[in-house]
Amino acid sequence: MATRIQGYYAILDVTGSSYNEAALLASARELLAARPCCLQLRAKQLPLADFCRLGHGLRILCTQAEVPLCINDRLDVALAVSADIIHLGQGDLPLGEARRILAATPAREMLVGISTHNLEQAREAQAGGADYIGFGPVFPTATKSDADPAVGLSALEKVAAAVSVPVVAIGGIALANIDAVARAGASAAAAIAAIQNTPDRAAAGRAIARAFGKGFIAE
Amino acid sequence: MATRIQGYYAILDVTGSSYNEAALLASARELLAARPCCLQLRAKQLPLADFCRLGHGLRILCTQAEVPLCINDRLDVALAVSADIIHLGQGDLPLGEARRILAATPAREMLVGISTHNLEQAREAQAGGADYIGFGPVFPTATKSDADPAVGLSALEKVAAAVSVPVVAIGGIALANIDAVARAGASAAAAIAAIQNTPDRAAAGRAIARAFGKGFIAE
Repeated sequence: MATRIQGYYAILDVTGSSYNEAALLASARELLAARPCCLQLRAKQLPLADFCRLGHGLRILCTQAEVPLCINDRLDVALAVSADIIHLGQGDLPLGEARRILAATPAREMLVGISTHNLEQAREAQAGGADYIGFGPVFPTATKSDADPAVGLSALEKVAAAVSVPVVAIGGIALANIDAVARAGASAAAAIAAIQNTPDRAAAGRAIARAFGKGFIAE
Repeated sequence: MATRIQGYYAILDVTGSSYNEAALLASARELLAARPCCLQLRAKQLPLADFCRLGHGLRILCTQAEVPLCINDRLDVALAVSADIIHLGQGDLPLGEARRILAATPAREMLVGISTHNLEQAREAQAGGADYIGFGPVFPTATKSDADPAVGLSALEKVAAAVSVPVVAIGGIALANIDAVARAGASAAAAIAAIQNTPDRAAAGRAIARAFGKGFIAE
């Protein structure tokens, strides 16, 4: 499955350590209904066994939906569930180490995305071989309690102009600001709260995708 | 390098998140001077970049000393630094997932050890393909603040009789109890505090090894 990081970048954000598999898979199905450019599983507090179990479940759903599966933070989990993308933050396994591991597993092709919060990190990630970068938080966000201060649209614009890899805007993205985010040069946008707080999540995801010029035939 | 889990199982226990590479490598050299059956790096709070950096440093020292390198908790770090052994706790990546990942990297042979705290976990680890198990805490320990209650020598004896893989006794091991630990059927013992609190760490490590019938020619 070809992976193109453009449009709506969906995140299944599992907060806390309690595990309700049926509810999480139902949420994933809702996100996948928008046909995002990938579905990222983020589960920072989940026990590793549950993280893996959910990852295997999403692997099946993503394959059925023809949507690439991305695992956040943990390359070991990404390898275990045969993810298409590993996404690493600044405090996670360094990019060079991830590249070293992936080079030793030639059977598997896995893209690497890196979270960045300023121009220097963005340039460093590209130089280190990131396939795309996340950039943000663009706007203030309530989803991450430990989020960095918002960087704003002008910083997004500078970063998008400075790197050639796709830039995924994240942090406070909503339908009200999505056109400005696209104009700033982002290739895709992740939206957690804006999607969670809307009655028709698939429609909201498709609206985000449309802002990046990726139209969908109405279902 | 052939790995045989017998005698003294050394652990470099990096507590906290501050990183003094020179001091940590010096400690590792002291542990390696006892010619342990392996050197495990445990660094639960260290940032991943430092964990990897230290792992690479230990990889060099261990190769020079002809001592297998073991990484605790993180299979991604173990893969990045080409460790000989990955050691996983009950809350870490499940054994089956680790086996799945390692099967996909045929160029690398890595043993898998599993921490166990009762007979059921020990049997399950062996059935799942663990190459050895840790068992403990045998005695009360001050090294791990979140340690389970001590299981005692009789539980160690039962576990050692029930599994065929080597059993590494851990938790409160000291020169005063090492002969009883060996008699209970353990193949090796890990000792952190007892080694740290002794003036001649290499001699203490060799004394532990001797209890398991692995003598060393005096240097």
